[in-house]
Amino acid sequence: MPMDSVHTVKSYEQELDRLRAMMARMGGIVESQVAQAVAAVTERDEAAAQAAPAQDPQVDALERDVEALSIRLLALRSPMAGDLREIVAALKITGDLERIGDYAASIARRSTRFDLADSQVSLSGLRSMGRLVQENLRRAIDALTQQDAERATEVWQSDRAVDEYYTSMFRALVTYMMEDPRNIGPCTHLLFIAKNFERIGDHATNIAERVYYAVMGENLPAMRPRGGSASSAESLDPR
Amino acid sequence: MPMDSVHTVKSYEQELDRLRAMMARMGGIVESQVAQAVAAVTERDEAAAQAAPAQDPQVDALERDVEALSIRLLALRSPMAGDLREIVAALKITGDLERIGDYAASIARRSTRFDLADSQVSLSGLRSMGRLVQENLRRAIDALTQQDAERATEVWQSDRAVDEYYTSMFRALVTYMMEDPRNIGPCTHLLFIAKNFERIGDHATNIAERVYYAVMGENLPAMRPRGGSASSAESLDPR
Repeated sequence: MPMDSVHTVKSYEQELDRLRAMMARMGGIVESQVAQAVAAVTERDEAAAQAAPAQDPQVDALERDVEALSIRLLALRSPMAGDLREIVAALKITGDLERIGDYAASIARRSTRFDLADSQVSLSGLRSMGRLVQENLRRAIDALTQQDAERATEVWQSDRAVDEYYTSMFRALVTYMMEDPRNIGPCTHLLFIAKNFERIGDHATNIAERVYYAVMGENLPAMRPRGGSASSAESLDPR
Repeated sequence: MPMDSVHTVKSYEQELDRLRAMMARMGGIVESQVAQAVAAVTERDEAAAQAAPAQDPQVDALERDVEALSIRLLALRSPMAGDLREIVAALKITGDLERIGDYAASIARRSTRFDLADSQVSLSGLRSMGRLVQENLRRAIDALTQQDAERATEVWQSDRAVDEYYTSMFRALVTYMMEDPRNIGPCTHLLFIAKNFERIGDHATNIAERVYYAVMGENLPAMRPRGGSASSAESLDPR
């Protein structure tokens, strides 16, 4: 763990604030990766397609830094109750953030591998889906940085809308493939991209659930069963 | 946390053993879910297709139990050094195990949504890939339960073979779709299934990396960049 202070012994509150700042920074980078992924696919923005994967090493490094600082806090400071829950939540949330960054990088890379010129394939559904997922992630990270249980509940509530977008995307893309075999290549990529956006939405919901638990000391009232059950999306395309 | 003993105060070692037993049990259930997923797809085994998702609630409950016990251990026992790293690793590893269970359940559900009768589509590649992923997961869980860094290194080394299977599956499935539009439906499902097996392999590698770190106190020498870089799989189908 890098020490950026000449004082070797920091106060407990300072160390906890440092952990929070690391989480906020990791959240911010991952948010920007998702924005780049959306631009890469829907605006065919090549700079964004390069930028999202380029941030991966920073995200991985922050995950390791959070872990190192958490272990230090746990070993030396014996945090209790709310602080302990917050540190444990941070350890789990970095896993979700790392995965989100990973999915965003994957979407961005994939966006450069297909061409929609001369095709009828529309990106408008994916654009709306991407925006909603971005919005949900932003709220989840707000909930995290402000330890705001109410915000967390909002994210959790709108995950269903993401699933509905995914279902309609899936249907539309398979139809394009059936209509013209030249659509198979690009639509296969778009299927994975839609799935990755759906997974990002899932992880944003995980983050919201963990923030809620850390703040409130209990689970969300009607905690969503992880991995989906018999939703409408499920019947067509199970997760 | 359920207390299965009349003694309300257990020894520290007993509680740590209890945590290890929970992890081993969670690993065992997830392993059986992956075996069921392989059978569901490659043997068209409908009982297995039902069984894998049915185990999801148990996995979710174990994830919560591990978290509750970890928080208890951290709050009351102030574990140090190796034990502390082991508890932190357990908290992260349950996240990987939960995701693996999720992917296995998703594969199992999906296996019932398509029919390969009257098609030329072969499942032999997927069968081999599924077996290799199962084998890697088994090794990762052995490494976890035995805190065996050497085993962990083996998993990490064979992840590349999983990626290579995935690449060749991807190519074969797209070819089937191009050849006959009637293959588009089943092959779309098989694409996602292959991707999910690849992701399971990824998470098995994550587990191995975390076990290595918990045991050795340092990262694997040539730690794999998460989320893939410019591998052969990457150029065709980025993760």
